[in-house]
Amino acid sequence: MAKRVDHDQRRRQIAEAVWRIAAARGLESVSMREVAAEAGVSLRLVQYYFETKHNLLVLALRYLHEQGESRAQARIAELPEQSPRGVLRSVLTELLPLDEERAQSLRVHIAYFSRTHSDPELAKVFLGEGTPIEDLVAGLLSAASLVPGADPWHEANLLVSGITGLGLDVLHDRYRPDEVVATLDYHLDRLFGTA
Amino acid sequence: MAKRVDHDQRRRQIAEAVWRIAAARGLESVSMREVAAEAGVSLRLVQYYFETKHNLLVLALRYLHEQGESRAQARIAELPEQSPRGVLRSVLTELLPLDEERAQSLRVHIAYFSRTHSDPELAKVFLGEGTPIEDLVAGLLSAASLVPGADPWHEANLLVSGITGLGLDVLHDRYRPDEVVATLDYHLDRLFGTA
Repeated sequence: MAKRVDHDQRRRQIAEAVWRIAAARGLESVSMREVAAEAGVSLRLVQYYFETKHNLLVLALRYLHEQGESRAQARIAELPEQSPRGVLRSVLTELLPLDEERAQSLRVHIAYFSRTHSDPELAKVFLGEGTPIEDLVAGLLSAASLVPGADPWHEANLLVSGITGLGLDVLHDRYRPDEVVATLDYHLDRLFGTA
Repeated sequence: MAKRVDHDQRRRQIAEAVWRIAAARGLESVSMREVAAEAGVSLRLVQYYFETKHNLLVLALRYLHEQGESRAQARIAELPEQSPRGVLRSVLTELLPLDEERAQSLRVHIAYFSRTHSDPELAKVFLGEGTPIEDLVAGLLSAASLVPGADPWHEANLLVSGITGLGLDVLHDRYRPDEVVATLDYHLDRLFGTA
């Protein structure tokens, strides 16, 4: 069992090196050799665990998703207020670069995103199946008591897309984090009729 | 005068070659030599007009903005219905890849966007000054008769960011164009109280 944990840790350590390079210099700077140097391991070890660069890119993205999801779930579980609105607000603020971890995650996603139009195989992994975040948000909205006429699906669609884009604007210093959070709270107020 | 027009046309012809390469293969594939080949002109001519690759990238982006703006203004002028809602809808659908021209423009923007986090000088040109589209949408909303409590600035912020993101989802085949237009119309209905 100890051996297995060790392998997982090594894989994660290498994946984290991919994230750092992608966030700072883009996906075109990710090579097996650069990643080995960044992770402080040998090139052979990177090749042993990941075989190809494509495999390394795909798995580094999967780890990033997994890590983001676990942390989001942990943060939601710790919420003092488990109301539909509180949970919804937490899910949506997970998309914003409100700390260094989420900022790095967003930067890595930008690096991958730019590759999606020239690498269909990577695009498939990046885009995933269906629209899980929109489904989650629409589900939370459906279960909540909203103002009359509010359509959970159309609302979820614009919220997820809009908050993601405003997160990129924060990275670019077009908006301050508190301005974007104020926009989110305004929209939740309007939906829940608490404006 | 004839000479001047000719120079402008040549510059535009070269800029359009930059767009095609950027849309298909990303900004990293743009070189003075590739652009000359794509435009069907000599390398010396590209160098004569643009001097450096950075200058070429900056000016190709400016031309794209100018062209997009002229076409948007022409489309808005031709609208049968010049109501605030009609104009607003037209401004926002300009952000969507509803024809090959807007799809290409969005692809070029993605290519530039991915470069903004590693090239601060290009980022400055790409991001521009202030938030002109948000200001335009907020201005149109302020002048319109909206449902009570609607805040033009918060609404403009989420609409511009959200519709831009949904346009990228259309490029990625996550949504059909008509689904995104339905989401936009739903939100305009809610704002104008016509739901």
